[in-house]
Amino acid sequence: MLNLSIHSTPIIQNPKTPFCLNPQISSLPTIKLLNPISRKLSLKCQYSDQQQQRPDVSSYSQPRQDTPKVFIGHSIYKGKAALTVEPRPPEFAPLDSGAFKLTKEGFILLQFAPAAGVRQYDWSRKQVFSLSVTEIGSIISLGARDSCEFFHDPFKGKSDEGRVRKVLKVEPLPDGSGHFFNLSVQNKLLNMDESIYIPVTKAEFAILISAFNFAVPYLLGWHTFVNSIKPEGAAGLNNANSRFGADLEWSR
Amino acid sequence: MLNLSIHSTPIIQNPKTPFCLNPQISSLPTIKLLNPISRKLSLKCQYSDQQQQRPDVSSYSQPRQDTPKVFIGHSIYKGKAALTVEPRPPEFAPLDSGAFKLTKEGFILLQFAPAAGVRQYDWSRKQVFSLSVTEIGSIISLGARDSCEFFHDPFKGKSDEGRVRKVLKVEPLPDGSGHFFNLSVQNKLLNMDESIYIPVTKAEFAILISAFNFAVPYLLGWHTFVNSIKPEGAAGLNNANSRFGADLEWSR
Amino acid sequence: MLNLSIHSTPIIQNPKTPFCLNPQISSLPTIKLLNPISRKLSLKCQYSDQQQQRPDVSSYSQPRQDTPKVFIGHSIYKGKAALTVEPRPPEFAPLDSGAFKLTKEGFILLQFAPAAGVRQYDWSRKQVFSLSVTEIGSIISLGARDSCEFFHDPFKGKSDEGRVRKVLKVEPLPDGSGHFFNLSVQNKLLNMDESIYIPVTKAEFAILISAFNFAVPYLLGWHTFVNSIKPEGAAGLNNANSRFGADLEWSR
Amino acid sequence: MLNLSIHSTPIIQNPKTPFCLNPQISSLPTIKLLNPISRKLSLKCQYSDQQQQRPDVSSYSQPRQDTPKVFIGHSIYKGKAALTVEPRPPEFAPLDSGAFKLTKEGFILLQFAPAAGVRQYDWSRKQVFSLSVTEIGSIISLGARDSCEFFHDPFKGKSDEGRVRKVLKVEPLPDGSGHFFNLSVQNKLLNMDESIYIPVTKAEFAILISAFNFAVPYLLGWHTFVNSIKPEGAAGLNNANSRFGADLEWSR
Repeated sequence: MLNLSIHSTPIIQNPKTPFCLNPQISSLPTIKLLNPISRKLSLKCQYSDQQQQRPDVSSYSQPRQDTPKVFIGHSIYKGKAALTVEPRPPEFAPLDSGAFKLTKEGFILLQFAPAAGVRQYDWSRKQVFSLSVTEIGSIISLGARDSCEFFHDPFKGKSDEGRVRKVLKVEPLPDGSGHFFNLSVQNKLLNMDESIYIPVTKAEFAILISAFNFAVPYLLGWHTFVNSIKPEGAAGLNNANSRFGADLEWSR
Repeated sequence: MLNLSIHSTPIIQNPKTPFCLNPQISSLPTIKLLNPISRKLSLKCQYSDQQQQRPDVSSYSQPRQDTPKVFIGHSIYKGKAALTVEPRPPEFAPLDSGAFKLTKEGFILLQFAPAAGVRQYDWSRKQVFSLSVTEIGSIISLGARDSCEFFHDPFKGKSDEGRVRKVLKVEPLPDGSGHFFNLSVQNKLLNMDESIYIPVTKAEFAILISAFNFAVPYLLGWHTFVNSIKPEGAAGLNNANSRFGADLEWSR
Repeated sequence: MLNLSIHSTPIIQNPKTPFCLNPQISSLPTIKLLNPISRKLSLKCQYSDQQQQRPDVSSYSQPRQDTPKVFIGHSIYKGKAALTVEPRPPEFAPLDSGAFKLTKEGFILLQFAPAAGVRQYDWSRKQVFSLSVTEIGSIISLGARDSCEFFHDPFKGKSDEGRVRKVLKVEPLPDGSGHFFNLSVQNKLLNMDESIYIPVTKAEFAILISAFNFAVPYLLGWHTFVNSIKPEGAAGLNNANSRFGADLEWSR
Repeated sequence: MLNLSIHSTPIIQNPKTPFCLNPQISSLPTIKLLNPISRKLSLKCQYSDQQQQRPDVSSYSQPRQDTPKVFIGHSIYKGKAALTVEPRPPEFAPLDSGAFKLTKEGFILLQFAPAAGVRQYDWSRKQVFSLSVTEIGSIISLGARDSCEFFHDPFKGKSDEGRVRKVLKVEPLPDGSGHFFNLSVQNKLLNMDESIYIPVTKAEFAILISAFNFAVPYLLGWHTFVNSIKPEGAAGLNNANSRFGADLEWSR
């Protein structure tokens, strides 16, 4: 499980040193470069046997020269927890015509890890929450004094429906200095009930909003629209018929 | 008519399952992949004989290896109707000089389908409305309590002018929780008078605004401006003459 | 003078027909395609002999297969005048190192043409105004009730300094429905004093803002920054030295 | 030190001439083009021996045909000082899998130079401040009447910790016409205590915000996410397993 392995060593983070956000992580590459083949990440994942592989991540990690997978989680580190946000791509399916269709919109994966010591976070105990496009819409339109709340059941429509219940709350901090993100997970399968809370300053929230706003069109696949507009391509040329059809807005 | 065929089977949608937005549609591709040639979509379009081909869509569906057409309609599903929004590209024409000129700005196609049952929508009865760039401007600048209204006559300037009248209203929901989109179509040719109404939450509206804002420069063709700026190209190099001309802002 | 030739025939525009913004222009390409070589544009430019060539435009019009020049002026047509806005690229100069330097920021060219009849505009009598990046900043930060004013002297620092004076005012419409753009040009060389006024609705203004916001990073050349970030390139790799240098923020 | 050399000659700037922002600089390229090899920049850097090389800049200056380094500092020139802002790229490290990981977020480099005469700035006496992504978040979310303040210690965690202290304040101008940026540097190593102050108008600030907003996703490396979404790539195709895994949001 590639994604987890990166965070499997608890992270020390010093928020006062702006250019050493993840000292341990950022020093890893040097080691890896010296010894790119034999080095192994030691995974200590308490529940690793119960974890689902995320095949989409695995498939990304196959070397592709043109567009290699890049892990770009943006993290916010605080005293009791860390939050990493990362966009996940939409999915497409080919049509008989040679065209493609977006079949699943992308999402933003939120990963919450509890602190395991001073500026150390235990990513093996992380809890995740996938923000759908509409939930992202709630967050990017959140006023300074607004709050929102989302419920997810990972087993929705499956035999274990209702056994796991996740609630994400985003609420203004009492002093108006930002919002807190609170993820509660009630897991009856594991008899576990956990809650991770992380305060997010106005500045950090502004960056989340900016990044989410950037991501939205790509989560919707609308960037493919851009690629399809080429002045010199046949598709871009003026066409009396297309004009006629569009003018009519005709469907019945 | 490719675009319609995709929606020709009523869609079941479960808004409570964030990752199964269009279960029927998203399961189609697997079938298609197994049987990419012989499979046929069964179209049951009540008015299909009266529908105009949209040649721009047809031309897009021709396989082009570099930039295949991708269907990226973003849908909002509600109890009584569904709304799909999708950008449509601008059109260009070549000039004698080898340059191109934008001849028609792109637009956002809104497609409204009435519900045909619980979470089922009858796309064969859809009504469409094409938002021009300026109409998009109205929507993206709409305050939480503002409303706007657009009138379209698909036969404007043609012999049937005035026989079909479309009105799109976007108005705030009474409780301030979002806006509703209401499309009324009065068609004297078919003696038909229909109205489709769909409430759009603040979060869903935020995503529409974000997507529309993303699309606007492309609808205007301004992304081609970006392509033309290359530091290493001759066009990007400093030039005393160009400086002179620009400084003068000289036109007469 | 390529740019002008396109507009040299007065344009009929019907603002009530959303898909026929420039009927005359958009029908031209069909003709041109049939007869791409022999057709000539008839130019009737009252002051064409006095006009400066804009070499940057001319050089763009040289056919370049990868990125052909595209004319993308976005126009607003009103009863007494039309306004076309179009971004103009920044300029770069090569350095000895093989790198490039931005030497002149791009701008937005505003072109105002007076009406010559019902929905006809005389582009041969156009007045132009080039919005610098900071002036664009004024406009994109303009509140609904704010106004701004810019002065340009095309001969600034030249022998004819002070002989031509241009003033662009952007002021809120009395009823709050938008802003008007007013360009006054006082030309003592031609003993000419002219003023073109065009009201811009809130919706149209929102599109201008959206387009200007899109253009700003490109006018600054910041899009080249994007091209320089490649995870797989040497430049993107972690580097103990670069880290050290950056941490120090050291300049003296 | 390439970056400095460009500014080593004091810059004359005439803010009233919108198309001659940096007359001296913009005339340089012409000379260079005539004599691209033998010309040398004369560097007069008072403290050049104490300056750290910025290897990332040096490595960028190696000619790379596909994406040459481009210097794109955006400058604001005022009576007593000039401010140049420029984005700096994030850093990545390769993983064993062939994928990459963002190891250091990009930043915005602010460079303040005191005036050395009328519209002349002494870049050899510049002071720099690197805005982290979160600090950028503070600035882009700054209300018209808000202020913010950042502290940096370039020697944080090193033996000279506390010997150099930098404070950047962004505060509203008393008349509400914009903000001032004030960088104070207290350097006990050099027994130096300096403060550079520059007023930034609302319009100039709007451009900074627009440019910063543009840069944020790239500083986070999120643009690489975009590259990874390809409808026709294997990664983009629908996949029952990936669907299952994502639905579960399953981590323990």
